[in-house]
Amino acid sequence: MILDKINYPMDLKTLSIEELNILAEEIRNLIIKKVNTTGGHMAPNLGIVEATIALHYVFNTPLDKVIFDVSHQCYPHKILTGRKEGFLNPDKYLEYTGYTAPEESEYDLFKVGHTSTSVSLATGAAKARDLRGGNENVIAVIGDGSLSGGEALEGLDNAACLNSNIIIVVNDNDMSIAENHGGLYKNLKELRETEGKSECNFFKSLGFDYIYVPNGNNIQDMISAFEKVKNINHPIIVHIKTLKGKGLPVAEMNKEAFHWILPGELDEKPNYQINTDYEDYSTITKDYILEKTKQDKNIITINAATPGVFGFNKEFREKLGKQYTDVGIAEEHAVAYSSALAKSGAKPIFCVMSSFIQRTYDQMSQDLCLNNSPLTMLVYWGGISSADATHLCTFDIPLISNIPNMIYLAPTNKEEYLAMLNWSVNQTKYPVAIRLPNNFVSTGVKDNTDYSVLNKYKVEEQGSDIAILGLGSFFELAKEVKEEIKNKMNINATIINPRYITGIDYELLNSLKENHKLVITLEDGVIAGGFGEKISRFYGNSDMKVLVYGAEKEFTDRTPLDELYNRYHLTKEHIVEDINKLCLFCNC
Amino acid sequence: MILDKINYPMDLKTLSIEELNILAEEIRNLIIKKVNTTGGHMAPNLGIVEATIALHYVFNTPLDKVIFDVSHQCYPHKILTGRKEGFLNPDKYLEYTGYTAPEESEYDLFKVGHTSTSVSLATGAAKARDLRGGNENVIAVIGDGSLSGGEALEGLDNAACLNSNIIIVVNDNDMSIAENHGGLYKNLKELRETEGKSECNFFKSLGFDYIYVPNGNNIQDMISAFEKVKNINHPIIVHIKTLKGKGLPVAEMNKEAFHWILPGELDEKPNYQINTDYEDYSTITKDYILEKTKQDKNIITINAATPGVFGFNKEFREKLGKQYTDVGIAEEHAVAYSSALAKSGAKPIFCVMSSFIQRTYDQMSQDLCLNNSPLTMLVYWGGISSADATHLCTFDIPLISNIPNMIYLAPTNKEEYLAMLNWSVNQTKYPVAIRLPNNFVSTGVKDNTDYSVLNKYKVEEQGSDIAILGLGSFFELAKEVKEEIKNKMNINATIINPRYITGIDYELLNSLKENHKLVITLEDGVIAGGFGEKISRFYGNSDMKVLVYGAEKEFTDRTPLDELYNRYHLTKEHIVEDINKLCLFCNC
Repeated sequence: MILDKINYPMDLKTLSIEELNILAEEIRNLIIKKVNTTGGHMAPNLGIVEATIALHYVFNTPLDKVIFDVSHQCYPHKILTGRKEGFLNPDKYLEYTGYTAPEESEYDLFKVGHTSTSVSLATGAAKARDLRGGNENVIAVIGDGSLSGGEALEGLDNAACLNSNIIIVVNDNDMSIAENHGGLYKNLKELRETEGKSECNFFKSLGFDYIYVPNGNNIQDMISAFEKVKNINHPIIVHIKTLKGKGLPVAEMNKEAFHWILPGELDEKPNYQINTDYEDYSTITKDYILEKTKQDKNIITINAATPGVFGFNKEFREKLGKQYTDVGIAEEHAVAYSSALAKSGAKPIFCVMSSFIQRTYDQMSQDLCLNNSPLTMLVYWGGISSADATHLCTFDIPLISNIPNMIYLAPTNKEEYLAMLNWSVNQTKYPVAIRLPNNFVSTGVKDNTDYSVLNKYKVEEQGSDIAILGLGSFFELAKEVKEEIKNKMNINATIINPRYITGIDYELLNSLKENHKLVITLEDGVIAGGFGEKISRFYGNSDMKVLVYGAEKEFTDRTPLDELYNRYHLTKEHIVEDINKLCLFCNC
Repeated sequence: MILDKINYPMDLKTLSIEELNILAEEIRNLIIKKVNTTGGHMAPNLGIVEATIALHYVFNTPLDKVIFDVSHQCYPHKILTGRKEGFLNPDKYLEYTGYTAPEESEYDLFKVGHTSTSVSLATGAAKARDLRGGNENVIAVIGDGSLSGGEALEGLDNAACLNSNIIIVVNDNDMSIAENHGGLYKNLKELRETEGKSECNFFKSLGFDYIYVPNGNNIQDMISAFEKVKNINHPIIVHIKTLKGKGLPVAEMNKEAFHWILPGELDEKPNYQINTDYEDYSTITKDYILEKTKQDKNIITINAATPGVFGFNKEFREKLGKQYTDVGIAEEHAVAYSSALAKSGAKPIFCVMSSFIQRTYDQMSQDLCLNNSPLTMLVYWGGISSADATHLCTFDIPLISNIPNMIYLAPTNKEEYLAMLNWSVNQTKYPVAIRLPNNFVSTGVKDNTDYSVLNKYKVEEQGSDIAILGLGSFFELAKEVKEEIKNKMNINATIINPRYITGIDYELLNSLKENHKLVITLEDGVIAGGFGEKISRFYGNSDMKVLVYGAEKEFTDRTPLDELYNRYHLTKEHIVEDINKLCLFCNC
């Protein structure tokens, strides 16, 4: 293998084009095999192999700086920058994260996993160089899909005025995670079709110099392009056309499905089909949306570029027709747009992954909550997980629940969820967010609660001495803890399902003072700024003891869930041990 | 006066152009008089008088929907839509807010005060119309300055694909709050210079239809333009050139200074000069920055379009030269850019107003804190205030302090602030935010604290029974409360200056358990998700009582500060009353 000789980018410099082409095939095969084993971003990485080889062939990294946007196209870069063992050796497949990570390599400048950041970051790196008096190249590599994010557009507007070297490689594979949406993409199409010659040019309108490379999967062409722009003294866009999924026919044909795959997906489903033969919160949400959409022409479902997270496959999206908007990577717009829809008589349902709701705090505060627009916002995947540091879903409770006017609900089972969802969609008074639990539970009993009576917690099992508030996903843990308390301490604890993250049930919490000494709160997210702290505050003037459980305020990185649960004492054993330490119920 | 006959837009329809021109002068004079009395946005409103008259003359509001971006150009609109008394009658000058407000009028669709939202909101309103089968016009009015915000750019990208009526009026006065920054503005200049004929057209590159109106202050021209686009069946940009400050020579000459003025500014300073003859946190920050900038070429100061908030006048900005970046309205870019500067060896100081840091949570989390970049972020105006609902500065503590890795500091006086600032700028380990207090206090004693020893609270006065944690601005209140406790309860309370918002001083808080029964926390911001709740949580497993003081989670709107302090019990009398109710120190 040519790759045997390549440990760092400098080893590329003496290879012939023919050897580089062979190397590209080797890298491609490694990626296919590795990603099919571990899961990960398949199609974006296959499309960028040649451009990455050319980048490291022409530029002098790490002196020259390369910043990959969202960095789910950084696998070839990792292979070429000292980390090929993570792709060659199955025992080391999990050693490196799927994103750029400075702790792994000096070739990675930033830890990146949210989109649309590279241009701003590169502008800062270039400006620091200028202040310092350096002369290295600074290069951002951004996919066409990421261009629609506000941060990228703000970055482009500013980068264009830098007056010094910055090279922005627009890797245009005519796809976001799903298809692209937005006027910008018509312009990219026109630029591809005219081989960059169209007078109407988004990048030039911002003041950038611009070159176009029709075949971004041709190493020689890419080398020529990069040689042309190397050491340039002003901002330039290198717009390259590449093929997402290049070299893996099933991925080339199913770009969306192969954007990110689960382990083994290639073996099991060579003709990719989405499995719909199960029930979970995604499927019941889809069923609900479909039914409602048929009944009411004012129902509209919105998401920002990640329909796959919600199971919104192409067939489903087509069924919704005009009553569906994918705004592309544009979460800020998604919230403001949805708020205006709600204010104008439509019934919007905005679906978003916990990690990405972070991209739109001010719009939730100003466009949505200050205007009290009756939006239904469904927050997926919220909870502690073994995710990598860039995709943690532990922060949505403090983020969302401290905004005035917002109602944030935490259902604990299917029936409760559907009742909340239906109430939210049909009411016209509040912005409502609902946090889909991570564990699917069905009671089989329809929930007839009137959720318009706000902030009423539900006593699921009345006991004494200890009350356990099990929020959302952690309601099941509350039941386990009760059982353990019963077994180990012979106390019949009360279990409460708070349901409302954003409000205090003063009456109920006060009533607990009568025959309880301890309240335990369990929430599937970061404690800091969250639900349990509000319960602590409530009882601050009383004798009630309060123990708050959830995640510590930290960025974890692919830490196994068991390890996190142990660290945070989120097991029935730990919790009972903690209770015993308080000596509230013993005679010692 | 023509205005006597005008109560609602329908009254405009029968007027001649000559009468409309007279009306424009009447409106202009009213605005000048009123704004000079109450303070407010002067220059933006003077520039938009004619366009607003034409808008209401041509369109059928409120059936046709007009959405003003940031809405600091809505005064003429208010005068024409049933609210002229608020400008004619000095007794009613304060009756209406300076922003659009649906509770005032059906002609206002949204409560808006942060920039760059109008296009997204209009897109939602238009889409709701299409779902409903309506046919009204939907019009966004956005200033050139607001275009650079990520939300506006995301909105434009999506609006361009609407396939139905949406009219976006770009009110181009060649100014943001200060001057514009960004490549986009070169294109606007080119469009102005070519009267819209340049082939290179940012808006067309996004797919918009486009017309240009060279004199947006000419009513007849504006009427013709609006008549041309009324009932159009696709997205169109109406790019109009107007004069910021039109009709008030001093404002035309000093556009930045007259963007927003204080009461009486016109009388006192006909030739506007910034008063520099005093000391406050702004002036000492400027002095520090200037000194450091001279010493170290890697120091760089960044802000996003509001240099005036920090007292960064033109002269000051010019002194900083290349070591200063105004990114324009682009807070997301500002944080990512600053993070990259910090990571690349520069020493960035990013200045931001509390209300606007809300526009960039994800960048603080992902670009900044996950990468642990040693940025210094100075947060101005954080605290409870009588501001209007769109400019509240009460939410920055929960927003910033619950992000991992961030160090958020709360100085209580000049010397502490300068010591923290200097430590932050020179350290290379953490992202540090500093919350400038709202009350200027100087001890005269240099602070030699080593702030690299994190989370060490300072016992300012050792007492017993009650400990008062007075955070930042509220340290002075803590001293008052101590005095009142001494007088009314004869208890010598302990006073603690926490200094670190983001961390718990476990040792100190534990030591308080020995001879204190009650801890009081005072913070100048919303309680929910804030500092005091963390102290409550800490003491949840102990006998310590905790009372948490700060703002309730609510959007207040021009509520007098005294009223808020009373509502929140933020007075020494209220607090001592609350303590007495606990019966911790009596024999009853």
